[in-house]
Amino acid sequence: MNKDKNNPECGVMKTMKIMGSKWSMLILHQLCSNKKRFGELQRSLPGISPKTLSERLKQLEDQGIVNKKIFAEVPLHVEYSLTEKGASLKDIFAKIGTWGDKNI
Amino acid sequence: MNKDKNNPECGVMKTMKIMGSKWSMLILHQLCSNKKRFGELQRSLPGISPKTLSERLKQLEDQGIVNKKIFAEVPLHVEYSLTEKGASLKDIFAKIGTWGDKNI
Repeated sequence: MNKDKNNPECGVMKTMKIMGSKWSMLILHQLCSNKKRFGELQRSLPGISPKTLSERLKQLEDQGIVNKKIFAEVPLHVEYSLTEKGASLKDIFAKIGTWGDKNI
Repeated sequence: MNKDKNNPECGVMKTMKIMGSKWSMLILHQLCSNKKRFGELQRSLPGISPKTLSERLKQLEDQGIVNKKIFAEVPLHVEYSLTEKGASLKDIFAKIGTWGDKNI
């Protein structure tokens, strides 16, 4: 039922396929303020394992939300940033943040 | 660092403790439009197990987001609805839905 394209609830379901895990949300939120290296992301998300972080980043990259840039330097470094599509999520995060500050 | 109360990112982290699972988000979203019985919720969320649904509902109840009302009828029935605090999430869901329709 809720998969019906004419169902107004559909947009939320679709978005949840992208943001639908605590870590994906928090990764995107971290990237809202600035591009970050893998290690920076890991430090900013206490409790996340490197495996989970790279899996989630890969998913978000595949979904066109996160951009991965590899710098051919020694040591090699990798930077993650939001794509244009990803950046359009900022507004949602602002609302979520305001809600959390007010209600929890 | 992000647990610092003075950190503006904190509100998002706090909200994610409540909404931070795909199912919790989708349950709340289902309740945005109307109160629902357990069975109705289950049917509206294809793929959720009864165990997960009742665990998530219990969590949301404990967090003051969802209200559980038991009717002493035969057969017994239970209705779930958003508390006032939960209802204040509607605005966020509207934004999430718009984003999903536009971007996915």
